[in-house]
Amino acid sequence: MRILLSNDDGVDAIGLKTLYEVLSKAHQVTVIAPDRNCSGASNSLTLVNPLRVKQLDNGFYSVNGTPTDCVHIGINQLMHEKPDIVISGINHGPNLGDDVIYSGTVAAATEGRYMGLPAIAASLADYDSQDFFYAATIIASILEQIESHPIPNDQILNINIPALPKNEIQGIAATRCGRRHQAETMVKSKDQHGREIYWYGPVGEIKDASAGTDFYAITQGYVSVTPISVDMTAKESINLLDSWFTEMKI
Amino acid sequence: MRILLSNDDGVDAIGLKTLYEVLSKAHQVTVIAPDRNCSGASNSLTLVNPLRVKQLDNGFYSVNGTPTDCVHIGINQLMHEKPDIVISGINHGPNLGDDVIYSGTVAAATEGRYMGLPAIAASLADYDSQDFFYAATIIASILEQIESHPIPNDQILNINIPALPKNEIQGIAATRCGRRHQAETMVKSKDQHGREIYWYGPVGEIKDASAGTDFYAITQGYVSVTPISVDMTAKESINLLDSWFTEMKI
Amino acid sequence: MRILLSNDDGVDAIGLKTLYEVLSKAHQVTVIAPDRNCSGASNSLTLVNPLRVKQLDNGFYSVNGTPTDCVHIGINQLMHEKPDIVISGINHGPNLGDDVIYSGTVAAATEGRYMGLPAIAASLADYDSQDFFYAATIIASILEQIESHPIPNDQILNINIPALPKNEIQGIAATRCGRRHQAETMVKSKDQHGREIYWYGPVGEIKDASAGTDFYAITQGYVSVTPISVDMTAKESINLLDSWFTEMKI
Amino acid sequence: MRILLSNDDGVDAIGLKTLYEVLSKAHQVTVIAPDRNCSGASNSLTLVNPLRVKQLDNGFYSVNGTPTDCVHIGINQLMHEKPDIVISGINHGPNLGDDVIYSGTVAAATEGRYMGLPAIAASLADYDSQDFFYAATIIASILEQIESHPIPNDQILNINIPALPKNEIQGIAATRCGRRHQAETMVKSKDQHGREIYWYGPVGEIKDASAGTDFYAITQGYVSVTPISVDMTAKESINLLDSWFTEMKI
Repeated sequence: MRILLSNDDGVDAIGLKTLYEVLSKAHQVTVIAPDRNCSGASNSLTLVNPLRVKQLDNGFYSVNGTPTDCVHIGINQLMHEKPDIVISGINHGPNLGDDVIYSGTVAAATEGRYMGLPAIAASLADYDSQDFFYAATIIASILEQIESHPIPNDQILNINIPALPKNEIQGIAATRCGRRHQAETMVKSKDQHGREIYWYGPVGEIKDASAGTDFYAITQGYVSVTPISVDMTAKESINLLDSWFTEMKI
Repeated sequence: MRILLSNDDGVDAIGLKTLYEVLSKAHQVTVIAPDRNCSGASNSLTLVNPLRVKQLDNGFYSVNGTPTDCVHIGINQLMHEKPDIVISGINHGPNLGDDVIYSGTVAAATEGRYMGLPAIAASLADYDSQDFFYAATIIASILEQIESHPIPNDQILNINIPALPKNEIQGIAATRCGRRHQAETMVKSKDQHGREIYWYGPVGEIKDASAGTDFYAITQGYVSVTPISVDMTAKESINLLDSWFTEMKI
Repeated sequence: MRILLSNDDGVDAIGLKTLYEVLSKAHQVTVIAPDRNCSGASNSLTLVNPLRVKQLDNGFYSVNGTPTDCVHIGINQLMHEKPDIVISGINHGPNLGDDVIYSGTVAAATEGRYMGLPAIAASLADYDSQDFFYAATIIASILEQIESHPIPNDQILNINIPALPKNEIQGIAATRCGRRHQAETMVKSKDQHGREIYWYGPVGEIKDASAGTDFYAITQGYVSVTPISVDMTAKESINLLDSWFTEMKI
Repeated sequence: MRILLSNDDGVDAIGLKTLYEVLSKAHQVTVIAPDRNCSGASNSLTLVNPLRVKQLDNGFYSVNGTPTDCVHIGINQLMHEKPDIVISGINHGPNLGDDVIYSGTVAAATEGRYMGLPAIAASLADYDSQDFFYAATIIASILEQIESHPIPNDQILNINIPALPKNEIQGIAATRCGRRHQAETMVKSKDQHGREIYWYGPVGEIKDASAGTDFYAITQGYVSVTPISVDMTAKESINLLDSWFTEMKI
């Protein structure tokens, strides 16, 4: 397959490099990734300033933009033939539950889907582990599976892999996004001149990690695969809203 | 009601100021908005650098961050009592169809919902009109409606208002997100030193503007109200994926 | 006189607003200043991205760039008639000794000089005082003086005013830049995810504050006026270097 | 010698890599450079946000800051033993005349001098040439010369090398900074949404390239070495100013 590989940790990240090495054995892989760490970038676009692209010694393209920018410019400008799939990752750390909406890793996959392509986001569900090799082989296996079972239209797969030895992984589970409690209070501190600054604090406690969620799967030693819809409409509420608003006078 | 008002066009934007004037007649409104234009910011968070807050002469809080940052820091740090609702806008230009996922306006509302609050995103569906007053009164009316008909859990309302004189607006329609074709090719040009730069080109043509979509409503002269889910799981695909992956060996 | 007024604390800064109020009684003042705090900007130019200009409700121009950008775009694009002088400030805090080279306040004046105009940089030598009024009247007086005694070619005046009541100011002294010891060690700390970050620590101790320096003048209650050359050549060393290098084989 | 090597074109730049290769044959070289192109950064400091450092696969340190930041953090934090000299470059393009004050290349050297160390800025006086090798050997030779003839106190050397074959270089000339006319009008254009943006236009025509200037030396095929003072005081004007201001009443 022809693969566009991106991420949000940046073009130097080890998770990206490891996935490139594993996938490029069997596939034609073009890497297009941000020049800086873009964790928390979500689906943001660089609209105010222009983008610049640099090809590094290892052939990877480095873009001074977001993961979404990388996928967009990659398909539109840098790749002469359209890729067959967009893959994003492997992210260093989990992308589970509410965090999916903030994730630049997931966003790169979403952008692929908007551009008409199947797409996968991949994360190693651990901040400390430096070993992405086995996670990369799992992504390679899932990729084979997808060739015979295409990802449903207007959806992407968000894959989180536990940082466990191969023989402790229990299997693959299809999941829904769990929920966290809202994040802890931001941390207020002072800069070197005594002026107030604020940092995001630690993420909130988990609120819904019941069976069926991505949190639950990871805790149980499963690879979590969550289908994510790129259409955010809450269709189940349309009729209700319609009944409220048709009666309203404006 | 106690309202946290934010936007993505920035703390100086006329749409924000007009909505503030209209809402503050009947409500207690705290404005917390980005110091710069953040169009296309999506749900991005400022994680790499700290945030700084400045209160302007008009009492508005200006934050060197994204719409999501503004709502998060507002609820966590700046407002002594939790607001009853988060309102974002009025954006200058539409937020319809696929563009919802890139919108900083919608993201500010989403962040309110993640923080446990009802939330509304409001946009004037026109880039040229400078008249936000009537749109602001419509938001005020919808706000009254919401007091008796609460927004469903884990959802926000994405409201787009056509830039029409009052007597030409046909009513309010509950809608789903339409779809665009993928964006046009990016525009490649050169900077003053002859180095290649890339700008996003115009948005793609509309692909699905059929009856029931937000695009359709606006074209027909209706205010479009789309319920947006903050949980992106494509629940309808979980069983299918489960059947694929349980058979897979890893 | 027609004055271009800029600063590095940003277009909202009280030192800028106070100087505008005082000078605009007798002069025609156009304010063009950065949209964000640019302390430490030195003579930096925004070359990688384009500049954007916004005129605020009070008539001031706000530029998403550096002090140097503001002066350059002001003379080249925004002012229909060339100004007679460029004034920068009043900065909140001193610009003395070695700090002159890092100062965005001084840089705005330097840029004026490069564009062929006389130029002044003004600073209140105190971080805590919020009273810029008397300092502004001193700048107005010096401006009158300059009309009859033009600033030498290729030089600007760097003016620092002690934060003292009017009757405690001893007079005006022409000075040279003093020297500090190198800055204290940078402060190493951790962000919220435990990753190492570095902040500049406090400025170094003063090393040369002997009679004749700007440091000395301020300590003694004088307004310090230092002529600054925009040509950095150390002319006294040219002959020496020439003798070394002509003998050298390459 | 123990050398701190930095630049302003960024840690990937070929001029930096070539100089590293040549110097590291005889010296112990630590590279600490910006992660992005910082042309035009002048002596700017990153004060509002913290700095982050990353060591790349080739051992170079990459800093998300300016050339000045790189030298400051390098001496203060990253190098266990203080370097003997700071070298900046080789810049891709000339740093001559008025441009010296905007140059990040020169600024990195200046920062070394402020930190108490001898320092050199090196530029290849051509934007098109990709061959930095011979220029690097000249820097190596000048470095040897400096070991026996120390750079005067409070000065740095700004070296520009013509992009000529070895046998066409005429020698080394000690020079003063020439002068340009002010830059051409900025270029006003529109972004993809029709909003006005401004780019810096081409540099101004040369105004003083007479014998003795850096411009002249380059044109004649000489390596130009300009001593630059880190004290910007225009000492020759102090007495004059003193006579003006002592008579002035404030």
